Amino acid sequence: MREVRTILLQKSVFEDNDRAAEELRARLREEKTCLVNVMSSPGSGKTTLLVALIRRLAERYRVGVMEADIDSDIDAVTVARETGCRAVQLHTGGMCHLDAGMTAQGLRELGDGLDIVFLENVGNLVCPAEYDTGATVNIVIVSVPEGADKPLKYPLAFEKSDLVVVSKIDALPWFDFDVEKCAQYAAARNGGAEVIPVSAKTGENMDALENWFIRKLSEE
Amino acid sequence: MREVRTILLQKSVFEDNDRAAEELRARLREEKTCLVNVMSSPGSGKTTLLVALIRRLAERYRVGVMEADIDSDIDAVTVARETGCRAVQLHTGGMCHLDAGMTAQGLRELGDGLDIVFLENVGNLVCPAEYDTGATVNIVIVSVPEGADKPLKYPLAFEKSDLVVVSKIDALPWFDFDVEKCAQYAAARNGGAEVIPVSAKTGENMDALENWFIRKLSEE
Repeated sequence: MREVRTILLQKSVFEDNDRAAEELRARLREEKTCLVNVMSSPGSGKTTLLVALIRRLAERYRVGVMEADIDSDIDAVTVARETGCRAVQLHTGGMCHLDAGMTAQGLRELGDGLDIVFLENVGNLVCPAEYDTGATVNIVIVSVPEGADKPLKYPLAFEKSDLVVVSKIDALPWFDFDVEKCAQYAAARNGGAEVIPVSAKTGENMDALENWFIRKLSEE
Repeated sequence: MREVRTILLQKSVFEDNDRAAEELRARLREEKTCLVNVMSSPGSGKTTLLVALIRRLAERYRVGVMEADIDSDIDAVTVARETGCRAVQLHTGGMCHLDAGMTAQGLRELGDGLDIVFLENVGNLVCPAEYDTGATVNIVIVSVPEGADKPLKYPLAFEKSDLVVVSKIDALPWFDFDVEKCAQYAAARNGGAEVIPVSAKTGENMDALENWFIRKLSEE
């Protein structure tokens, strides 16, 4: 298994995060690295979903992962073990979000030559949406047990996202979750975002999610 | 149905939130009002749980509810309609947490003479734990679909809480959630917090939760 490094993030030196994010994004586009910022609530199944997705994408791309956590380092170890891809753990030291400076610190540790890097942001639907990480793609995950009203209650995360993933659809029989309604609420916030319902557990519709990223990478 | 007012919270004037919180808590204790700060992830079933709990408590106490949301006002209307208790909606205007000044604004709108007031904080396990609201009791809810590792990943919310409610236990057959393990993780953060697993949907163990509050109110 690859070694997984843990980095305690330093406070960013940039006063202007938006500018730092634009600069980072320009550099990533030049280097043809797709950086995917993944936002969600705690417990939406981000890590399980990423493992299933990366196993597929790793067959054609060089993939890296940065796992941000307030205070634990189990996710990066899990992802590295399950996928064999390069992974670093980012400790935010209690901070509720990542900014562009922190993201750049993680990318430096991860190293060059990657086609796609997933940044698993802090599990929080509020603050991460307010700070541009410099990612070239933003996605938000909402899991079936959380309820279809999340785009109403946490609008900014949905406004900022290119893709809404509805996760844990294997749990649809046991929860009152209307996928159509969730898609409507999301569309009201952001008409451009696609909605893809998946189950990482059963593999249902994971093809559609994989293809979304293959299309995205071919465009960049 | 009672009228439900919506308040757009003003930025707090207090520079020292900890002091403002201590002053508010002292005043509440003098007035014999128990203020319960409720923290959880988005979609953990806070509102459904509060409705079920308040219906029980309203038989012996005067209950009020403050529902904090970034940008919607469906929760306070739901709670007022379902329980008949006094409710106000607090719009945080995008803010990710409540502080003591904002809590005091909500209490003013709610009015005097209440035995117990529930403050449904913003759905976020990170930031609300960092700001003392002035509550006399803090509780955290973790729902079965979120996974038992939440006390490891979001330690502060568990450290600050007097009670951990494991919600949606009707979903235990379909999720890999170990209640004992969750209780152990929570105890490692905070040995003093009780853990009560419940289902608001089936009513399972809601008696234990009701009794916890009855005991709490008799102590104050």
